Amino acid sequence: MRSREVRLERRPNGAPVAEDFSFAEVQLPPPGPGEVQVRNLWMTMDPAMRGRMSEARSYVPPFELGKAMEGPAVGEIVASGDPAFAPGDLVWSRLGWREGFIAPVTKVEKRERDLPPQAYLGFAGMTGLTAWVGLLHAAALKPGDVVFVSAASGGVGSVVCQIAKLMGHKVIGAAGGPRKQAFLTDVLKLDGAIDYKAEPSLTKALARAAPDGIDVYFDNVGGEHLQAALAIANKGARFALCGMISQYNSTEPSAAPRNLTQAVTKELRLQGFIALNHLDKMDAFLADVRSWHAAGQLEQVETVYEGLDRSLDAFNGLFNGEGLGKMLVKLG
Amino acid sequence: MRSREVRLERRPNGAPVAEDFSFAEVQLPPPGPGEVQVRNLWMTMDPAMRGRMSEARSYVPPFELGKAMEGPAVGEIVASGDPAFAPGDLVWSRLGWREGFIAPVTKVEKRERDLPPQAYLGFAGMTGLTAWVGLLHAAALKPGDVVFVSAASGGVGSVVCQIAKLMGHKVIGAAGGPRKQAFLTDVLKLDGAIDYKAEPSLTKALARAAPDGIDVYFDNVGGEHLQAALAIANKGARFALCGMISQYNSTEPSAAPRNLTQAVTKELRLQGFIALNHLDKMDAFLADVRSWHAAGQLEQVETVYEGLDRSLDAFNGLFNGEGLGKMLVKLG
Repeated sequence: MRSREVRLERRPNGAPVAEDFSFAEVQLPPPGPGEVQVRNLWMTMDPAMRGRMSEARSYVPPFELGKAMEGPAVGEIVASGDPAFAPGDLVWSRLGWREGFIAPVTKVEKRERDLPPQAYLGFAGMTGLTAWVGLLHAAALKPGDVVFVSAASGGVGSVVCQIAKLMGHKVIGAAGGPRKQAFLTDVLKLDGAIDYKAEPSLTKALARAAPDGIDVYFDNVGGEHLQAALAIANKGARFALCGMISQYNSTEPSAAPRNLTQAVTKELRLQGFIALNHLDKMDAFLADVRSWHAAGQLEQVETVYEGLDRSLDAFNGLFNGEGLGKMLVKLG
Repeated sequence: MRSREVRLERRPNGAPVAEDFSFAEVQLPPPGPGEVQVRNLWMTMDPAMRGRMSEARSYVPPFELGKAMEGPAVGEIVASGDPAFAPGDLVWSRLGWREGFIAPVTKVEKRERDLPPQAYLGFAGMTGLTAWVGLLHAAALKPGDVVFVSAASGGVGSVVCQIAKLMGHKVIGAAGGPRKQAFLTDVLKLDGAIDYKAEPSLTKALARAAPDGIDVYFDNVGGEHLQAALAIANKGARFALCGMISQYNSTEPSAAPRNLTQAVTKELRLQGFIALNHLDKMDAFLADVRSWHAAGQLEQVETVYEGLDRSLDAFNGLFNGEGLGKMLVKLG
């Protein structure tokens, strides 16, 4: 079996360009004992990959130059050197950015077929866990809370919005452009939807959408969104800080928010979190999302790019506002 | 009885100047039923007063123009129209910025004579409660934590440092100038003392003083100090946000910190708090500070200005780096 893969050749300065990457084809040998050969069906993009393309140390090490990048993928076992895996088994791995791979069985995890395969890259994967942990643990959502979500039409944001809505909360989402705004209103049925690109003042727009203030802010963005949330927050509001996508491609650190003193006067709690550190909660999380999906209350929001050649488009779709929901590449 | 008082005549722009205030003398009538006449012995200054001199709404209303300002004071009953208060009783009130007053008994609270009167304006008053609540509740101090304190030689900071030290923690303090730095090292016996005015990079200075990182940051300052703490924080560190004095006199909001994404990657918790909202913990707090003071582990750090005429100097001493510890005005 042959597999094409995407390698990082140069660390991007600002937004990644095609020249930062190369495509290569490798021959996969048959699996030895304790190994499996996998054909990837789907891979997904997440903003944290931008961090790993840089040299700066983060909570995960940087990608190595000259090697295939990594990221969440689901695939099918093609050949197995381990009795616990059989051809056709669905497996999750971190070996995305390639059409297939051979790896020790410790690098793959079996997944059930009761959900669509790509759900494990979205609402039933780290994306969903991020939404669930952020909302229920970092922000400690409680009855009656008004919830504000930035990047609300994105992979994590769209799950946050659905969970908060199905739990009965008033939810206000922000996203860029009229198409995403309409999606938040018409499809996710949010109580308020802000097109931040159309608003001269995000703070004023949020004040109009949330006349009684906000109690929880799920921050995917940082910067001006965080500043608006600080301004409109009610006393004792809790912020789940999930990632500050507005800054991932910046070569200059952002100056905002300029009103962090609001955190003192309103006794706010800002809680940063990384879903990877909450894998102990995986079973409770999966039980919740399986039941919500079965009840028709939680659906995957996704933008699908066909084939490995589109993977850079999918990655850039995270930042250029092109895609809705999870950016997925269909490989199989 | 006659009393001189300090009135706010104009809302300051930036640092307050003498022309923003006036001095006036009033005649106090004898107390009617349910009233007491009080001679103030001590009054104190705190940075939050700067906020009340401005028009902006905060957690307390602004001072009114043309009227005496308010602030914590301790005084002695001179004459009483209520059987629960007798001449000579020590009382705490919010009726500072004046030599004496007449008020309903609901405006004063009796204090015991077992501590020096001005302790109730410092380690046994709101200042101490701020330190105690911030460290033990907002930051949830736990054994082994390395603690960083900004404005460490100030009213709140000097109590935070002493509590953290007597509980066995490694404590690093930052303050401005060699005199304060020496005070932190020689008098408070801290494990590290940073003169931030002498450091081209506060982050590098903190990294040197805390080679194993910091687990708790007690923020009295905001701005560059908060930025350094974010940079040097260990995973899961907790920040108590108490007040951002670097910004109180600013006409422009500060841009720092520029590295709030550290809160995400290191799963930090930033907890704003206002001691006034924790009065339910007053008894537990007073029991702690009484026993620590009796054991010689907690002392008042104070700078004393003599007479009401020096009250503006005392207030500016909060900001110009002149004073150590609590800024007190001795009136009685």
